[in-house]
Amino acid sequence: MLGADLLCDTLLSNGVDTCFANPGTSEMHFVAALDRKPRMRCILGLSEGVVTGMADGYGRMADKPAATLLHLGPGLANGLANLHNARRAHTPVLNVVGDHASYHLKNDAPLTSDIESLAWPMSQFVKRIGCAADVAKDARAAFEAAMSIPGVATLILPADAAWSEVSNAPKHQPYVPKQPVVDDKAVQAAAQAMTSGRKTALIMTGRALRAAGLEIAGCIATRTGADLLSQVSNGRIERGVGRVPVGKIPYPIDQAIAALKDYQAVILIGVSEPVAFFAYPGKPTHLLPKDCDIINLAGIADNHIETLAALSKAVDADGASSGAVTHAVAPPAIEDAALTAELACTVVARHIPDNAIICDESISSGRDFFDQTSHAAAHDYLQLTGGAIGIGIPLAAGAAVACPERKVIGLQADGSAMYTVQGLWTQAREGLDVVTIILSNRSYAILQGEMKNVGVDKVGRNASRMLSIDEPAIDWPSLARSLGVQSCRATTVAELELALEKAMAHKGPMLIEAVIA
Amino acid sequence: MLGADLLCDTLLSNGVDTCFANPGTSEMHFVAALDRKPRMRCILGLSEGVVTGMADGYGRMADKPAATLLHLGPGLANGLANLHNARRAHTPVLNVVGDHASYHLKNDAPLTSDIESLAWPMSQFVKRIGCAADVAKDARAAFEAAMSIPGVATLILPADAAWSEVSNAPKHQPYVPKQPVVDDKAVQAAAQAMTSGRKTALIMTGRALRAAGLEIAGCIATRTGADLLSQVSNGRIERGVGRVPVGKIPYPIDQAIAALKDYQAVILIGVSEPVAFFAYPGKPTHLLPKDCDIINLAGIADNHIETLAALSKAVDADGASSGAVTHAVAPPAIEDAALTAELACTVVARHIPDNAIICDESISSGRDFFDQTSHAAAHDYLQLTGGAIGIGIPLAAGAAVACPERKVIGLQADGSAMYTVQGLWTQAREGLDVVTIILSNRSYAILQGEMKNVGVDKVGRNASRMLSIDEPAIDWPSLARSLGVQSCRATTVAELELALEKAMAHKGPMLIEAVIA
Repeated sequence: MLGADLLCDTLLSNGVDTCFANPGTSEMHFVAALDRKPRMRCILGLSEGVVTGMADGYGRMADKPAATLLHLGPGLANGLANLHNARRAHTPVLNVVGDHASYHLKNDAPLTSDIESLAWPMSQFVKRIGCAADVAKDARAAFEAAMSIPGVATLILPADAAWSEVSNAPKHQPYVPKQPVVDDKAVQAAAQAMTSGRKTALIMTGRALRAAGLEIAGCIATRTGADLLSQVSNGRIERGVGRVPVGKIPYPIDQAIAALKDYQAVILIGVSEPVAFFAYPGKPTHLLPKDCDIINLAGIADNHIETLAALSKAVDADGASSGAVTHAVAPPAIEDAALTAELACTVVARHIPDNAIICDESISSGRDFFDQTSHAAAHDYLQLTGGAIGIGIPLAAGAAVACPERKVIGLQADGSAMYTVQGLWTQAREGLDVVTIILSNRSYAILQGEMKNVGVDKVGRNASRMLSIDEPAIDWPSLARSLGVQSCRATTVAELELALEKAMAHKGPMLIEAVIA
Repeated sequence: MLGADLLCDTLLSNGVDTCFANPGTSEMHFVAALDRKPRMRCILGLSEGVVTGMADGYGRMADKPAATLLHLGPGLANGLANLHNARRAHTPVLNVVGDHASYHLKNDAPLTSDIESLAWPMSQFVKRIGCAADVAKDARAAFEAAMSIPGVATLILPADAAWSEVSNAPKHQPYVPKQPVVDDKAVQAAAQAMTSGRKTALIMTGRALRAAGLEIAGCIATRTGADLLSQVSNGRIERGVGRVPVGKIPYPIDQAIAALKDYQAVILIGVSEPVAFFAYPGKPTHLLPKDCDIINLAGIADNHIETLAALSKAVDADGASSGAVTHAVAPPAIEDAALTAELACTVVARHIPDNAIICDESISSGRDFFDQTSHAAAHDYLQLTGGAIGIGIPLAAGAAVACPERKVIGLQADGSAMYTVQGLWTQAREGLDVVTIILSNRSYAILQGEMKNVGVDKVGRNASRMLSIDEPAIDWPSLARSLGVQSCRATTVAELELALEKAMAHKGPMLIEAVIA
């Protein structure tokens, strides 16, 4: 068999059966091998930002990596911004980056570039396959690396490693996750802090934000009076009916500092000490009060559920009420009016069906949405994690590939949507059950706020040309239809209500432009 | 003044007066400074691939760098593929990449990444500004680096270097290009090879492909019988009436080898020894015959015009006929028929107005176009240079910004166009005089050919899903209109003739979908 076939077999034997791709000439032998493996589902993205963003959405929901297939350095480069988001979400992703045949690299042909240098900033594992004989070993190592923390692993596949003959795959060894390690000392320190009468918060991410983790954390909170918080941006939170509500540290620096100012102790699970998203002149970059006790209870790679269980035992919380949401509470109906960002989010919050997946790249327009949906029907909540805009449309597509029976709702800022708008085409081609609500304010509104933060109240031509995206206004319904996605526009509360009712009754991709003032 | 203002002033004093941008929070002080400098023209791209592609088109036509403004590592990453093309075209580009305040980097906030590692593969100069006091010096060094070879220079601007106070700009020193050095020994060797009766070719790129270089090369060719060739992909060729025609080494490997097989000597100006774009099993990667004499007459950074002048003198070609094109010859009218790639290119070739700029990202569909237009009206011909698809639409936009009085024609493959389709919006916003002809074959046709090269004649579902972009077919006229660009569709020769007549009479952006079989 060829190295390319062995790579496919190794991926499949490890359960990697979905490949988001945009291949090129150097990957043709791998494409031919994929063509011989109908068990692998190959999904095309019309640019690599779509490819990697889909892999992020898939990995967050499937808890295993999809493969990506990328064309040399430039193909990887196009996908790096969303790999940055995947890295920050700790999503398992396994990139296969094709490269020239190894003996051709020295010729510096036009598509040659330093792939390792490009890959490392967004990968926790980078390996160039030396020859076809190494394919199975290196692919398995990449898979293990993607699963371990989890995170992004990048495998560079030279064309000659793909096209050379190699013996069959070695016998498959099942992947055994690392044994959970609970830091008993940290558990005792955390328990002591929580029961000392000091104002305490548990700040969490990762598996602690799944239903099982939150259930234990809820009991601990009930028992100790501690608050439950998550970091500003999290890869996935299980929320709504049946789940314990968890707060989120606000994004704006002043609000974040205010939200944390009274804590005397914080216990960190999977997160680092909270820091500012950006630095501002004269403002702190560390968000906790100076004298706040910080206890690192578990790192991102540790077992959050076992750790929470140990903490629960230590504070005698087993059997306490978790405070999980018992029944869905949607915001009440609102009177018809022209849409604003707040009204649009409220209307969307009223229409969340049971078991939905919400992909939130609403940026400044959706700041209230998280609080409005804490008591919604059970749902998963996926966010922009790394601040690299352009994740929303592909994230929703990838989540829909992983969970074909669930409705995916994309709450999407317009400026960010334009980064990877090509993802709508993949939603159409694959018939994915995604409804995208474009919060269309025709500006990078967050930056207009930031201009005020730097002391500019009245912007001139240059700044306004860089921060507004009107002139021309993007016609979102036409744009979506041109890529095969049904669409409509809503400018009032009533129109958006009607559009969402239709969208929730419809199976397949749909886009609603919510024009907001 | 602030470091940000000093950066603007330094750019402007060096003639860098155009900034293609997509800024974020960490760049807000620089945005505010740009807002105080109306002499700087700021042009927004809705994704960074558009931003850097525009800078490439601008730099190719203006022979000086535009600035780009990019948001940290992910913003740079999105722009890297087109910076790769700029690097291969040797286009002067000056990237300004914002970063966190220097003291905030250690906190590993969500948008933190290793910007240097990302920048180096596509840059010949990377410099992180240490503090505001270094801004003028570092910006000048970046400008000189961009101009020297020329190529891509990347300047990293920490937010605190931008927002800190600094003294005024140092006195401006005019930029003096390096004195031309001509390698007399190489000139003598080249002259000897050319007059020895052996079959010889001059293979050129860079300034040798401008009118002045080709004029001298034409005289040399007339005098010696040598052939004039350019490399497969070149940043800019001045062609048509008044210019000396120059051939191009074909892209397909077998054709390239066939085209070069008879040469006994080649003389290289600005190019390396020709190598295969990709390696293929059992095929050579070096394209010249084994016993061919290779004479490196000038590197990319050398003075090509002076070198050609010295060679002309050495072979006694001064005063010989150059063989420049004396009058425009367009392909004859063709009978109406359903469009094919070949017919569409022929029709476009019939409609090239005087002094046009042609941006060619036609990939497989436009292989004949170059030969068909050697005797067209005078025009500049800009190509995809680095093989990173998605350059065409922004390249055309950038060229139009540099040359507002000239018609820009984008000959554009559909698959590649989708990579940076957002660039149509900038064409609309800036009212750029660009007509884009989408050669719509609804596939990555070049890869379908490459599949045959790897021995796959009948593709299955997986490969066809990765190599075709039909289902759904992209509705290009609607897509263009949704982004503010006038558009129409042509399916026959007559329809395309009519559409092009209208487009050439129209000032401002327009898109024509040429649906080809």
